[in-house]
Amino acid sequence: MTSGTTSTPTPTPTPTPVTVLGLGPMGRALATAFAAAGHPTTVWNRTPGKGAGLDATVAATAAEASAASPLVVVCVINHEAVRSVLDPEALRGRTLVNLTGGSPRHARETARWAEEHGVGYLDGVIMTPVGGPDAVVLYSGSAEVHGAHEATLAALGGTPTHVGEDPGRAAAFNMSLLDFFWTSMFGVVHAFRLASAEGVAPGELGGYARAMSGLLPGMIDAVAAHVSAGHFPGDESSLDSAASLLDDVLATVRANGLDDAMLAAGRAAVRRAVDAGHGAEGFTRLAAP
Amino acid sequence: MTSGTTSTPTPTPTPTPVTVLGLGPMGRALATAFAAAGHPTTVWNRTPGKGAGLDATVAATAAEASAASPLVVVCVINHEAVRSVLDPEALRGRTLVNLTGGSPRHARETARWAEEHGVGYLDGVIMTPVGGPDAVVLYSGSAEVHGAHEATLAALGGTPTHVGEDPGRAAAFNMSLLDFFWTSMFGVVHAFRLASAEGVAPGELGGYARAMSGLLPGMIDAVAAHVSAGHFPGDESSLDSAASLLDDVLATVRANGLDDAMLAAGRAAVRRAVDAGHGAEGFTRLAAP
Repeated sequence: MTSGTTSTPTPTPTPTPVTVLGLGPMGRALATAFAAAGHPTTVWNRTPGKGAGLDATVAATAAEASAASPLVVVCVINHEAVRSVLDPEALRGRTLVNLTGGSPRHARETARWAEEHGVGYLDGVIMTPVGGPDAVVLYSGSAEVHGAHEATLAALGGTPTHVGEDPGRAAAFNMSLLDFFWTSMFGVVHAFRLASAEGVAPGELGGYARAMSGLLPGMIDAVAAHVSAGHFPGDESSLDSAASLLDDVLATVRANGLDDAMLAAGRAAVRRAVDAGHGAEGFTRLAAP
Repeated sequence: MTSGTTSTPTPTPTPTPVTVLGLGPMGRALATAFAAAGHPTTVWNRTPGKGAGLDATVAATAAEASAASPLVVVCVINHEAVRSVLDPEALRGRTLVNLTGGSPRHARETARWAEEHGVGYLDGVIMTPVGGPDAVVLYSGSAEVHGAHEATLAALGGTPTHVGEDPGRAAAFNMSLLDFFWTSMFGVVHAFRLASAEGVAPGELGGYARAMSGLLPGMIDAVAAHVSAGHFPGDESSLDSAASLLDDVLATVRANGLDDAMLAAGRAAVRRAVDAGHGAEGFTRLAAP
């Protein structure tokens, strides 16, 4: 602004109306964040009554809700539910943002459906809870569509991140991360079962397990670096030493009569790598494409 | 101390001599820590030359090394190696601290061997690197033996923690924690493989994977709390919703032709719990003893 001149204030743009389809815990969080940022918000849920307490207009049908806003966000239980709530007539000419989560194939299928029906499309995955400044939501699909709605999507917190034109790419990130997360969670629950079987109480194990989880970020960095370099040094943790440790863990699991299927599957992957001559290389070798 | 009287200074106790058998990276760290704390240190390694650079006397045989100190620490590759280096004549009347790691059965077997040969015994596991103030080493076996050597073992850093009279108990902690750690590491390497298959580079995935690992401490606390309470609320993450997410991940893994054995084993465990009527309960139900 130049001093000494009277400037006409830039008119504040009217926040874009937004519709949220699906009011599970995530859908409610989405509707709450859009409404809090001043977007006129319309909501719909298959089971009525879930819109109570939201600063939003409750529509009677998914079609009515979709027709109410230029930007329609869908967050329901799974891919089948997504397809069942989408009304091509109500959505034509609007933009659909699918935050349901699912496989890259699901995302690409829904993108194709949207294209066939003249609907703009973004597929997104919510990595961390929406609403706060640290929220992470990844989007893939048309960069142009993303750019057009970036300001509105910023209401969810953090920075909307576009990870590629392929509509399945955000889902590819998500599936990879869930692969890590759920496999780790199986490790957590199994560790507590093994501890219980050995007479170690949950409260005794918990603090040490937390400490052990603190090693994972460094291991993740090591795996990323080794895969990028195509080189898997074994000086800190070789496949041979992993095999030996895993044999001890497996023997203990079996001595307690617990399910050994996951660890045995992992042990088999180590054995294949050792048999292929990689025993002196690092465990990170297993991440090689 | 009473003021006005002259006190005779308490003589500084001579640090106990310590022997370290095995000079892999861990054994070298142990010898370094004992020597740094002023303990006359004797070392031995099956392959000669590993004692170079240590402030320690290098013995020619394991028996000679064992006879040199009242406290003998063994840290070798595995249980079989432990048994091969122990000389009952050289160790009689001394205390053996086995920091090799292994199963609870191994620990109990070695404890029995020690008792039969008049050797004091502690089994220990090194949870975090020794030498610093945050080092965590757990010990099990005779509390009396632990008490007698606690001051010397404090040279390894942190506080030597006695977790029970059963010599297998430290190993039980260790096996449970390694169960979690290695299962998680399989998840990490598999996630990077899946990402590569989907065209997501290691550097693109790494930061998000690190962030995801930050969820684990809270999940560990939840599992510990739920198992302690015998109550597994499913409001945040039910077995039914885990099943649905896992199906998406599995479909993506299979579509890329990757090894699905670990995830399939986990999915089967979820299925059994759902079939047993626990679908609406939390994923933490899988940790129930």
